[in-house]
Amino acid sequence: MIIAGVDPGSRVTGYGIIKVEGNHFQCLDYGVISTTGRGCPSELKDRLHKIFESLSDVLDKHSPDYLVVESIFYARNVHSSLLLGHVRGVILLSAARAGLPVIEYTPLEVKKAVTGYGRADKEQVQTMVKRLLNLDTIPKPHDASDALALAICQGFGGARSSKRGKRWSESDLKQARHKDPC
Amino acid sequence: MIIAGVDPGSRVTGYGIIKVEGNHFQCLDYGVISTTGRGCPSELKDRLHKIFESLSDVLDKHSPDYLVVESIFYARNVHSSLLLGHVRGVILLSAARAGLPVIEYTPLEVKKAVTGYGRADKEQVQTMVKRLLNLDTIPKPHDASDALALAICQGFGGARSSKRGKRWSESDLKQARHKDPC
Repeated sequence: MIIAGVDPGSRVTGYGIIKVEGNHFQCLDYGVISTTGRGCPSELKDRLHKIFESLSDVLDKHSPDYLVVESIFYARNVHSSLLLGHVRGVILLSAARAGLPVIEYTPLEVKKAVTGYGRADKEQVQTMVKRLLNLDTIPKPHDASDALALAICQGFGGARSSKRGKRWSESDLKQARHKDPC
Repeated sequence: MIIAGVDPGSRVTGYGIIKVEGNHFQCLDYGVISTTGRGCPSELKDRLHKIFESLSDVLDKHSPDYLVVESIFYARNVHSSLLLGHVRGVILLSAARAGLPVIEYTPLEVKKAVTGYGRADKEQVQTMVKRLLNLDTIPKPHDASDALALAICQGFGGARSSKRGKRWSESDLKQARHKDPC
């Protein structure tokens, strides 16, 4: 089974691709799609376009069975959640166009799956990502390592339990509808 | 000049296409892309896919010069702004892939452009949309009429002033970065 983890961000979107056989994990690829800095487009629509094209290329290359993202009901303010929603929308669209199921996990679920402890700190998660994937160093930047942690979480879920993370349910959508300003 | 207005929503996305010659407006097309009800996909990623494909078809058909959306810095809660962000991200991506500039207006700017009064009610806006486009009836549902109002706002902006609405600027993105939880 091949799993893609994606960690969306308005500046940097991390991705990580792993192969899972039983309880053995192999890192196939990881990296980031950066939309800031020299040569990057300044307009949001063009940044979204870059994320979409780059991620679609990665998915084409590795043909994963799942795409895993963090569920982000915890976002703390309207402006940042709106912007993050734009990026996330484009990532979910990439998955839909590639015919991939999308699985969501909370940060707590990811930490618990990777370290055994839901309140583990970032360093502990990164150390375990390196260890579980048998890498020489901790994958950098942290956006890539977070994406690999998401993929590992699904790898454990697939291998060791029937738990498959959270999808946006009809009741979530109803709740949003109720509050939807549009 | 041909202008596409789009009113994104998690359930219903309205669109309206107008042709502007001087101060003469002609309605070319309007409608909604619905993602709820019988036959609609239940998963968010598939709803986004439907919106993307349908809107891309509309843009292909009419080859507009601009795509106009409402700026939504006013969204009131994290959950609905996150969901709306997903839809909006996919709409901006459609524009980017079609090579279209994206223009944003606040609700106040749209009302002021269409009725002359920034606090006009919905009925007044709809009446003026019907009048300005020389239609027999008010375009229904309101999502389509709101989308046409956005297009008209840009039509007036293009015809009568140099005002071109708001784009997401570098400073907006910086502000979001500052608050970005990811």
